[in-house]
Amino acid sequence: MQLLEERIKATGKVCAGDVLKVNGFLNHQIDVPFVCLLGKEFHRLYKDCDVNKILTIEASGIGVACLTAQFFNCPVLFAKKAVTSNMGAGVYTAPVHSYTHGIDGTVYVEKQFLTDTDRVLIIDDFLATGSALLSLIELCHQAHATVVGCGSVIEKAYQTGGRAIRDRGIRVESLARIQAMSVENGITFCQ
Amino acid sequence: MQLLEERIKATGKVCAGDVLKVNGFLNHQIDVPFVCLLGKEFHRLYKDCDVNKILTIEASGIGVACLTAQFFNCPVLFAKKAVTSNMGAGVYTAPVHSYTHGIDGTVYVEKQFLTDTDRVLIIDDFLATGSALLSLIELCHQAHATVVGCGSVIEKAYQTGGRAIRDRGIRVESLARIQAMSVENGITFCQ
Repeated sequence: MQLLEERIKATGKVCAGDVLKVNGFLNHQIDVPFVCLLGKEFHRLYKDCDVNKILTIEASGIGVACLTAQFFNCPVLFAKKAVTSNMGAGVYTAPVHSYTHGIDGTVYVEKQFLTDTDRVLIIDDFLATGSALLSLIELCHQAHATVVGCGSVIEKAYQTGGRAIRDRGIRVESLARIQAMSVENGITFCQ
Repeated sequence: MQLLEERIKATGKVCAGDVLKVNGFLNHQIDVPFVCLLGKEFHRLYKDCDVNKILTIEASGIGVACLTAQFFNCPVLFAKKAVTSNMGAGVYTAPVHSYTHGIDGTVYVEKQFLTDTDRVLIIDDFLATGSALLSLIELCHQAHATVVGCGSVIEKAYQTGGRAIRDRGIRVESLARIQAMSVENGITFCQ
């Protein structure tokens, strides 16, 4: 998505440790009118898939998920993070690793909100190792919900997550795909 | 707001420990079309106040904040939670207590995103003790930003938070105000 690549080039900051900061429009300050355009694009890509629920993970996925869900006229379910895996009978749980925070944890959703009649679009801000998306896919599998596909705003295509998910036969759409990134040379997008 | 009170009556669950679960439409599953109506109502209340930024706190404030911000055509800034108060020079920090999680922590925003030219509407899902909103007000004061007012979806009016903020001369609008609540007798709203 041209507009998004331009925005990343103009305002994103590549930091040491393979970190891309897009805090100015995506995951600290959210440029709501702009993120609505991203939501519209996810809708264009998935509008024929009978999506009836969008699943994301707290915290930074929630904004883009909500602004996308409007176009599908459907609810958002956000998986919560817990430090314990001892969550009780009413929830589905899956392990997740946060690279930003450097910790292993558990994500969960309440069973009543994810069922076998759901056709789920999974949305997140970043796709890198795929840990978050794979956790959300796992929650859907436990609930026997149908995963229509995944949508990430920014994919680090040089990392393994996108391939790992696509190799499982799951559709992944990323609005910007980064081919290479470094503090010295900046960002190159996939053609 | 009649529609909201009806929704809380119909789907909210009062649990032991003064907990109101509205997980079905507000803070786990988000009924996006419905929450858009809440955002529209916040806009009706604050539309003449030249709001140019909405401030909230992760995680459950983000959805309602984003869906509200559309009507103001402005960005959302969400304060992040950190367990350390040693955050560096580029951020404003304030202490916060989470009653849900029973821990004291720190919230922060990057200084570059909150400045003295901002006219801020502070949005959150719940107002009870006021700890979260007071932390966000404190961040605004540090930045010399103008706090136009606060908007909470559900206020526990029998707790002290609403009064504490109003006594500071800050406008608070709550879309549903609970006068009393118990497992035995259910929910009574303020008239």
